[in-house]
Amino acid sequence: MPNISDRGLSAHSSPIRKLAASAERAKKAGKKVHHLNIGQPDILTPKVALDAVRNASIDILAYSPSNGNASYREKMPAYYRKFDIDIQPDEIMVTSGASEGVWFTLLACLNPGESVLSPEPLYANYLGFAGMADVRIKPITTRIETGFALPDISAFHAAITPDVKAIMLCNPNNPTGALYSEATLRALAEIVLEHDLYLIVDEVYREFCYSDGAHFFSALNLPGLEEHVVVLDSVSKRYSACGARIGAIITRNTALRNAIQKYAETRLSPPSFGQIFAEATLQTEDVYFETVTKEYRNRRDLLYRRLHAMPGVKCYLPEGAFYVFAELPIDDADHFCRWLLEDFAYNNQTIMLAPGAGFYATPGMGQREVRFAYVLNTTDLNAAMDCLEHALPEYTRQMESDTNAKVASLAH
Amino acid sequence: MPNISDRGLSAHSSPIRKLAASAERAKKAGKKVHHLNIGQPDILTPKVALDAVRNASIDILAYSPSNGNASYREKMPAYYRKFDIDIQPDEIMVTSGASEGVWFTLLACLNPGESVLSPEPLYANYLGFAGMADVRIKPITTRIETGFALPDISAFHAAITPDVKAIMLCNPNNPTGALYSEATLRALAEIVLEHDLYLIVDEVYREFCYSDGAHFFSALNLPGLEEHVVVLDSVSKRYSACGARIGAIITRNTALRNAIQKYAETRLSPPSFGQIFAEATLQTEDVYFETVTKEYRNRRDLLYRRLHAMPGVKCYLPEGAFYVFAELPIDDADHFCRWLLEDFAYNNQTIMLAPGAGFYATPGMGQREVRFAYVLNTTDLNAAMDCLEHALPEYTRQMESDTNAKVASLAH
Repeated sequence: MPNISDRGLSAHSSPIRKLAASAERAKKAGKKVHHLNIGQPDILTPKVALDAVRNASIDILAYSPSNGNASYREKMPAYYRKFDIDIQPDEIMVTSGASEGVWFTLLACLNPGESVLSPEPLYANYLGFAGMADVRIKPITTRIETGFALPDISAFHAAITPDVKAIMLCNPNNPTGALYSEATLRALAEIVLEHDLYLIVDEVYREFCYSDGAHFFSALNLPGLEEHVVVLDSVSKRYSACGARIGAIITRNTALRNAIQKYAETRLSPPSFGQIFAEATLQTEDVYFETVTKEYRNRRDLLYRRLHAMPGVKCYLPEGAFYVFAELPIDDADHFCRWLLEDFAYNNQTIMLAPGAGFYATPGMGQREVRFAYVLNTTDLNAAMDCLEHALPEYTRQMESDTNAKVASLAH
Repeated sequence: MPNISDRGLSAHSSPIRKLAASAERAKKAGKKVHHLNIGQPDILTPKVALDAVRNASIDILAYSPSNGNASYREKMPAYYRKFDIDIQPDEIMVTSGASEGVWFTLLACLNPGESVLSPEPLYANYLGFAGMADVRIKPITTRIETGFALPDISAFHAAITPDVKAIMLCNPNNPTGALYSEATLRALAEIVLEHDLYLIVDEVYREFCYSDGAHFFSALNLPGLEEHVVVLDSVSKRYSACGARIGAIITRNTALRNAIQKYAETRLSPPSFGQIFAEATLQTEDVYFETVTKEYRNRRDLLYRRLHAMPGVKCYLPEGAFYVFAELPIDDADHFCRWLLEDFAYNNQTIMLAPGAGFYATPGMGQREVRFAYVLNTTDLNAAMDCLEHALPEYTRQMESDTNAKVASLAH
């Protein structure tokens, strides 16, 4: 049998999806599984966009241009203007989800072996795409004690070596919910200019800011960084449409777009149905976001309150996105998350979480942490928290009794 | 301004799409452009599949499993059984077009710097994906004189070096239309076993075989190669649905699927609308393919007859797919193809072709060759051939007169 490549063998496993088989078995056994592991919202997708696909008159489902349909790209600037972002249709390249955007951007900005600085815990798939693009992620570790705020800018300065070509952020942050302020971005901008780096910012949660006075600031509005900034975007979270697989790369750097265009042509085109859908999402009325943001804020508050009340759980009030990265009173979150699916039930229900270690580039970090995606309605979220509240002491008892049994058997 | 990566700068330009801007300008100037450059058929997409998307009842456009919807994968074996291929749902991984399949397969089978043998001219995007995966394509050159048949198997033996980990073919072939027989595949199988290589076969044109007695033989039916064979598939050409962006990787090699699964999870999921569409294509009646194949055979015969009648054009009768790779009486196909769009018209019409050099891994090859995709109805195909028939002598005259003018100016 021929060998699997070393990179294939060592490819990063998604902490979000790797327990999928255990979850399937739990469901087949009749258990209700509350999915807080994955950012798949239960919010309804805007009907105007679903209807656009339903009513599209298609005789031949043809390729689109590699950088996306012109009709879609021409309508996008109006959306960005709502955030005071001034962008032209030609500066937007439509991708198959923000995922493809991460991959194309890493390939075009970095050579094999070069590095990108990124705060950790980080969006786990950055590690996967870095592996696929053969680049390194040099983490800047952030801490739960400060709600995973960025450390002093000197930590970035200290991490810069000649192989570092870019800084990559998710703002608001997945998996921590941290929101980076204008001041923070301006401080990063200075480093970016000083070292002539790319600043790659994943802004797919732009709409989801909850705290009073918390204000989203786009990297596209950093003056003087026109050639340095690449923004990644997606309709997945904004319109509860993860299955559309439509994202975008936005940059004013023409040379970079030219390089990315060749990658885009290699994979031919983004999905055609998804683009019809995405173009119609732009008709979504503002009230949709007001309702959705209010709903997420309620969920955030509920999740925070419930977690905060559990003995030994460390958490904080996140400002954006729809995640909390919490510390649990356990030693091995990987084992705990599997145990929840395979060996635990409360009222014949359980909860699926994403173990924390997979969100760190630094080995050994995140062993006691998990990511919660608050993508379920408050009733389900409460039921999920009931599960966790019962699971934590039960797990501790079971681990202790297993240890005692082992000790006893060794003593004989 | 930060540097574009070396790989971004040197990324392979698609010969199929790189003249798109010139074509757009020609169309804006009111010229009709006959697109023979791209495998985008004018055949109607099966209504049953378009209707499935139209009638789908979707409230939340959610992620699908990373390896594709189970309902789709469970129906696919019945399709493969029509070709006597015995495959299980778990051996199929749904991808975003065969394109993504090429990329995941190269990553999982080869390490950076390793090589894959592939007959050239080859599907141009193999070169693009090889660059993105940092692997080399070592070409086995095939010749127009033999209709681009594979050379004697000794050519493969001679090309094997320790860095070669795979042989990659497209059967029936894009861009040449060559069909590889069972005997040819069995000869390759011996080399594959002897050197423990992967055999990656892109079978997206499986249905499109035209010559009497020409019989498609799938690499999945090579005995003893269960761990070695990877088949790439796509609904794009089969159902005239290039915009669906749904393909598949099929392999019985479990370890390889496990590696690819991690890549699949990194990009989350294939497009949801496309999967609803693709699942419904499986209801397409056989009469569709009979009609379509008959239509393509007529086009092939027409294109061959017209090209054969043009002085100085070398071509052959292709057995499958919907391409002819022909040699024209010109010195620089790149220049000629651009000239066709920018400086030529016949009855206010012109023809867009894919220049040949981009389909070769060997520098300098294909300068006089172009790929024709016979994806237009016979009326348009005849009009396109009228354009070419007039363009060739006009181009020659114009080049000669330019040369004479240059010589004259130098003489002064």
